[in-house]
This record gives sequence, C-alpha cells and structure tokens, in this order.
Amino acid sequence: MDRFNYKNGELHIEQLPALKIIEEVGTACYVYSKNTFLDHLHKIQNAYAQLDTTVCYSIKACSNINILKFLSDSGSGFDIVSGGELFRAVKAGADMKKIVYAGVGKTDEEIKQALDAGIEYFNIESEQELENLIRLSSEKGCSAKAALRVNPDVDPKTHAYITTGKKESKFGVDIERAEKVFDTYSGNPSVKLRAIHIHLGSGGNTVDPYVEAIEKILGLIDTLRSKGYEIEALDIGGGYGADYVTGYGPSAKQYAEAIVPLLKDKNLKLILEPGKSIAANAGILLSEVQYVKQGGSKKFAIVDAAMNDMIRPSLYDAFHFIWPVKTDASFVPKHRNENMQMEGLEKYDVVGPICEGSDFLAKERLLPPLKRGDVIGLFTAGAYGFTMASNYNSRPMLPEVLVDGDDYTIIRKRQTYDDLISLEQ
Amino acid sequence: MDRFNYKNGELHIEQLPALKIIEEVGTACYVYSKNTFLDHLHKIQNAYAQLDTTVCYSIKACSNINILKFLSDSGSGFDIVSGGELFRAVKAGADMKKIVYAGVGKTDEEIKQALDAGIEYFNIESEQELENLIRLSSEKGCSAKAALRVNPDVDPKTHAYITTGKKESKFGVDIERAEKVFDTYSGNPSVKLRAIHIHLGSGGNTVDPYVEAIEKILGLIDTLRSKGYEIEALDIGGGYGADYVTGYGPSAKQYAEAIVPLLKDKNLKLILEPGKSIAANAGILLSEVQYVKQGGSKKFAIVDAAMNDMIRPSLYDAFHFIWPVKTDASFVPKHRNENMQMEGLEKYDVVGPICEGSDFLAKERLLPPLKRGDVIGLFTAGAYGFTMASNYNSRPMLPEVLVDGDDYTIIRKRQTYDDLISLEQ
Ligand SMILES: Cc1ncc(COP(=O)(O)O)c(C=O)c1O
Ligand SMILES: Cc1ncc(COP(=O)(O)O)c(C=O)c1O
Repeated sequence: MDRFNYKNGELHIEQLPALKIIEEVGTACYVYSKNTFLDHLHKIQNAYAQLDTTVCYSIKACSNINILKFLSDSGSGFDIVSGGELFRAVKAGADMKKIVYAGVGKTDEEIKQALDAGIEYFNIESEQELENLIRLSSEKGCSAKAALRVNPDVDPKTHAYITTGKKESKFGVDIERAEKVFDTYSGNPSVKLRAIHIHLGSGGNTVDPYVEAIEKILGLIDTLRSKGYEIEALDIGGGYGADYVTGYGPSAKQYAEAIVPLLKDKNLKLILEPGKSIAANAGILLSEVQYVKQGGSKKFAIVDAAMNDMIRPSLYDAFHFIWPVKTDASFVPKHRNENMQMEGLEKYDVVGPICEGSDFLAKERLLPPLKRGDVIGLFTAGAYGFTMASNYNSRPMLPEVLVDGDDYTIIRKRQTYDDLISLEQ
Repeated sequence: MDRFNYKNGELHIEQLPALKIIEEVGTACYVYSKNTFLDHLHKIQNAYAQLDTTVCYSIKACSNINILKFLSDSGSGFDIVSGGELFRAVKAGADMKKIVYAGVGKTDEEIKQALDAGIEYFNIESEQELENLIRLSSEKGCSAKAALRVNPDVDPKTHAYITTGKKESKFGVDIERAEKVFDTYSGNPSVKLRAIHIHLGSGGNTVDPYVEAIEKILGLIDTLRSKGYEIEALDIGGGYGADYVTGYGPSAKQYAEAIVPLLKDKNLKLILEPGKSIAANAGILLSEVQYVKQGGSKKFAIVDAAMNDMIRPSLYDAFHFIWPVKTDASFVPKHRNENMQMEGLEKYDVVGPICEGSDFLAKERLLPPLKRGDVIGLFTAGAYGFTMASNYNSRPMLPEVLVDGDDYTIIRKRQTYDDLISLEQ
C-alpha cells in the first residue's frame, strides 16, 4: 500500500492529498488508486510468468466498470459469479476468452447469457448444474467448456480460515466424486469438461493450504489423464492474503515460489482468481467525524460512514486500519498495525450513524485525538467494501473516486434521495 | 400472520395465491400484505388508546413509500433516522407533527432539512448533537423541540437481547447525566427539551424490561419536573416482539396491559416506535429452488435469493420459517416453528447463489422434499429484509409487491443490469 502515504502530515493517495478530493466530492466516499490496482495485477502476472497463466480478477471484490476496463486493458481476465458481473465485464470490453464463471446457483437466464457471450469456462459446482448446462447448450446448438470445481478438503484445523474448500460446503464436488463426474459426462459433445477448479475460501495467509490442495488435485488430474480424459487447465481460485496490516500475508512472489514448481512441466494452463489481493489495498474509505462522544468510560467517534457503506467489521469482525488523513508530525504512522504504539493516542470506538449496536467500524482503537470535522481514512477498503454496500436506513450509496497520479475522476456518482425511490411507484 | 395461509396446499397471501404473483413478477421477490400491516398498526393504536398516544412506525424496518402512505393515512407517524427517511416520509405525505428523528450521527445537512420540514421531536443522542442543533436552529432563527434519549441501563443479564438501552453504547446519554443536560440546556430558546426518549434495542420478547425501564424513567421525569422542567412526552421506542415463530413474543395488547397502567394520570403523551412488530409478519420473501445438491452427508437447496437480498440469517443468525408455497396436503403447516415434526421431512441447508460460506438462509432445516423449480417462502421477511439489501455479486435488488385482498401491485420494480451501473461513468 505504498501509494497511500503521509506527506507533511497529510495523507496522499498517489500524488493527490486526500482532502483535495473531499473538497469537491464530500464525505463519505471510496477512493481507489489506479496504479496500486495495476501494480498488484502486474506483480501476480510476473510471478507466474513461467507458466501459461491467466489472471482472472474476481469482480465481486470491487466491480466498478472503470476499474474493470483498465484491468482488462492490462491483460486481466475475470472471475464472474452472476449475470450482473458478466454484464459488467462485457461493458468493460473484457476478453471473453479470459472469463471463468463460478457460482452454485446459476439460473437458466444467466447460463444462456454466458453461452451467448462465449465465455471460456463454466466452473461447475454440481452434477445438477452440469446437466442443466448440457441441456441449455444443446438446446442452443452450441458447445461450452467447463471446469469442475472440486473440494480438495484441506484440513481447516491445520489452516485457520479455510471455509469453502472443505467437504460439506455448498460449493463444488468432493474429490472422491470428481472421477465419477468425468466418467459420466466427459464424452458429452455440448459441454467439454476440460479443467479443474478449486477455491480455498481464504488461505489464512500462508501458502501451505494452496500447496496441499494443488498436490491433491494433481493426483486427481493424473488419474483422470490416465483414463484418457483431457485436462488442459487448473484454476486455483483466489483467497490470497492482502495487506490489511503491514506485512500481513505472503506476497504474490512468495505464493508463486511455492506454487510454480508444482505445476512446471505439467502441461496445464494456470488460472488464478485473485480478488482482495488486487483490490483491498488499492482502496480507502474517507469519512468525516460528526461527533465525539464520551459515553461512560468509553469514547465514541461517530463518523458519516456506516455499516451500510462498509459491512466487513460487523459481518466478519474484520480489522481495518483507521487513521486521520491529516495529523501532527508526531502522529504520522510508519506502518499499519492492529495496535499502534505512540505517545498521546486515545481509545475510541469508531461507529456510524445507523441505529444498531452492530454498526461499528472499529472497537477500542488507539487513535490520535479526534474532533468534529476531522476526516479519517479506513484503509484497505478496496475489496468487499463498496460491492457489499446497502441502502439501509435509507442512506444513499457513496461515490467512488479513482486517483491516477495527481489527478482523479469520479467513477461513480453519489446516489441521491431521488435515486433511492426511483423504482418505487 | 393469519393472512399467510395454505388453501388446498397452496400458500395464499391474503386472498391471492403466491404462485399467481410469481407468474408475472418472477422470483425472487418480496411480497407484503397490506391488511397485515394495517392490522398490526391498529392493534397497537387500540391497545394504547387510553393514553394520548402516537404510534411512530419505524421506517428503517420496511421503507417503501407506498407502505408509508397507507400507514400515514391510517394515523401513523414515523420514526426516522436519516435525511433519506425524512425524504421518504415527505414523499408519503406524512404529518410532520408525528415525526421523531433519532440517530447518533445527524449531519448538518440532515438537521437543516428536518428543521425546514418542521418535524415534532429531534431525539437527541449526545450533548454535542444538542449543541449543534441549537447552533443550526438559531442560525435559521427557528425553534425546534427535542427529546433527550436516555439509557435506562436495564440489565442485559436478566433480559437477554437487550443491546442498545444499556450504558457504554453509542446511543443516548446515561440516566445519571440526563439531569445535568436539562440543567444546562433546558432554558434554551432555540431548542426546547420537552421529552424523554428510550429504546431498548430488542425487548427479548418479554414485557419486563419495558416495565423496568419506564419505572426508572418516570423517576427521572419526577425529578426533572420537581426542578421545574416541562416534560410533555415519553417516547418508549421500539423493539416489541414479532411473530417469527408462531406464538413467539407478547401481543400489542399484552405489552399495553403492563405499560398503560404505569403511565396513566402522568400527564405524558406517549410515543411508540414499533418497527418489526408492524412489518416483520407482513412480508414474505419468495424464491425458487435452482438446484438440490447432495454434498457428502448434507443436502443443499440452492435458491435464487441470497444474503444480499436477506442478510438477517448471516448477520444476526436470525431464524426465519421457510416452507414451500405449494405442497401436498400432508405437509401443510399448522404453525410456524423452529422444529417442524412431520412424517417424511428432509434436512436441508437452504442457501443462496453467492460465493461465500456465509450465504445461507437456513441451516439443517427440516422441510418437505424439495426439487428444482419449487418456490419457497421465507416468512416474516417484512422487517429488515429489503431495507438491508445490497447489490453484492452484482445482483439486482428484488421487486416489492403489495397484496390487498385478491389484488396486487408492484410497488417497487426489479432492478435491471443497467440500473446497477447507471451511476458509473
Ligand atoms: C470462486 C471464487 N474465486 C475467487 C474469489 C476471490 O477471493 P479473494 O478475494 O479472497 O481473492 C472468491 C471469493 O469469494 C470466490 O468465491
Ligand atoms: C430508536 C429506534 N426506534 C425504533 C426502532 C425499531 O425497532 P423494532 O423494529 O425492533 O421495533 C429502532 C431499531 O433499530 C431504533 O433504533
């Protein structure tokens, strides 16, 4: 997150002071750094350059079409999970040959749209879905390619946070069943099963579960190939650590150093679906302190962003570094950590204006003394921030701003009250 | 919830078969019963008729302007918490003399809008907010009325679920400090402190915490009056139980039987802010089964509604009764319970299509055997359902339908893909 730096006590996003954006756009707002997005993408592309690799950015993390556009221009493909995300990818001018489509509940309508668009792989989550895809593609008289999503069943006990790559989840099929799926469906002319897909949920910020899962899957691929089934690609999903706290999580290079040797000379195209490792650190949520309130022994900083704008703290108990965007020299942070140690910090609950106890952005957080009118930044807000926003409490959705160098563009306008009710009649 | 009944194995909403709506509107969709809304409102109005009572429906629970309109026409006032909710109330033709405005983070802009609209009470959450309101109303040369929100500090240990009426929350001021606030501000000409506001969060489905809190507050009001401060109203907030499970939670009448005697002859206007007790049971979320999937020992019903449409199960671990809207005579439910006992039920996780483990509507739920194409109803979805919806995974927001007798109106259109990106440029 080296493009979010303090100069003379003022947070700059790339070369632009955060407060400069606020002057025109107001608070709260999401701000992204274009070059951080690109930097993260390029680092991943380079780390896996020895293999035939396609990076398919996971649109759900941050899905503004302006962002998809410049990622696509830089060679990114996309991981989509809905008709809406396909629509976004098309609008962004994406290369359909670099699109993979996951999701356990693809509707007929969505499948037809994806068939028409000519995406590369349907990532199949169940036999029922595969049969449905076969039916729809043969009705259309076209042929589709599919990857079978397999649960590698890496042990969640040894790898904390792994949530979607284990058995008994709604995703994919268990590894024992995968062979049977190929036996049954691989000769089908309408849907060509040509790849394996895995996604571990979240790798718990170590490379180990990826290694364990890939080794298991390579065993499966060997078996499948020995039976004569053609496997051309392995999609290893997303879940790579993002830098929520300085130094947290391995870099793309560290992941690749463990993963690339496993896949060399395997004659497999590699697909990756990074979401948060590209987007999280590229975004910040700016918000203004409305009131500072002493409540019993607790101090509350009430800001104008709330759980409807950023639900990760309430929903996942997620940590986001928060700091005022303008501060005395003595409070300029040298790193972003869960527990900042500086003389003179005070403890705050940073909360939003929503009438719910669960509406908070941070609890018991040490911060420089705050006052009404201060603007704070909630860092690492680029992934699963705006995309999870709601209109709860009839709060209009925030604008999104893209910074490039010392320049910025409003890439999504703030919702108005009229927008809130425009579909009500 | 007596207007959601099975006739010949088919769920009717009022006199209308649920499947009839689906034919035109498609799934998933929210459907409300107008007469259930009105029935709940009238029951509360009647239960407190002995007192000078204003029921201020809490807009955040379900905020479609068409619903606000008919509630307003039936004498309801409104509890608002944002400029957006004020905008909705104005659009619905609400009586501004029946509007109370709570919220810990009211912005200057919002306060000015509410001053211009001439709402009845600003429910003040902190001294800082009160000073800000004084500043803004004196700048405008107008005068406003305020209620001080007090934390009655009822014991959360004895009353499970009480979350916002205790000390150390971001809401209101502690009871010990309330007197001091009156001492400091009650002579102010721009803002007249004339009422006390409490809100317990959720009453845990017994009347007791209300009784405990009101008794404490009446003590405070006595003290304040003995010092010569004029207190004209008591706003006892919301949080009354709704019928999520048949027979769960006291009725309006039962609440009133305990509360009315406490307030008789006290020369206090009473304000109530019910949200879920009016809206929850008046709505249902209809959704279609896309796939039924056996995953190891678990069975998943994958439906076309997801956590972005209804986040309460994921966010609050909330229980919602789920049942197919068309079913064999043997499976017609006689009540709505957490554990249905019938011959032939099967256990399902009912999940949405979102790519997250946290995307579920029910876990390990006994249901009649489900198959692709079945439509299920998620009951008691009227409150904090649609109002908390997001576009996560680029999923368009659902339509809202209002049933009145055997007729229905689409009161909010389904979002389109174009709507999703209309603010992106
Ligand atoms: C199938 C799939 N791929 C990729 C991702 C992106 O994950 P992350 O943002 O953690 O990299 C997700 C996230 O839910 C997913 O479900
Ligand atoms: C101040 C206030 N009043 C009323 C309500 C409505 O509560 P319920 O829907 O539980 O009745 C809320 C809910 O958050 C609230 O914060």
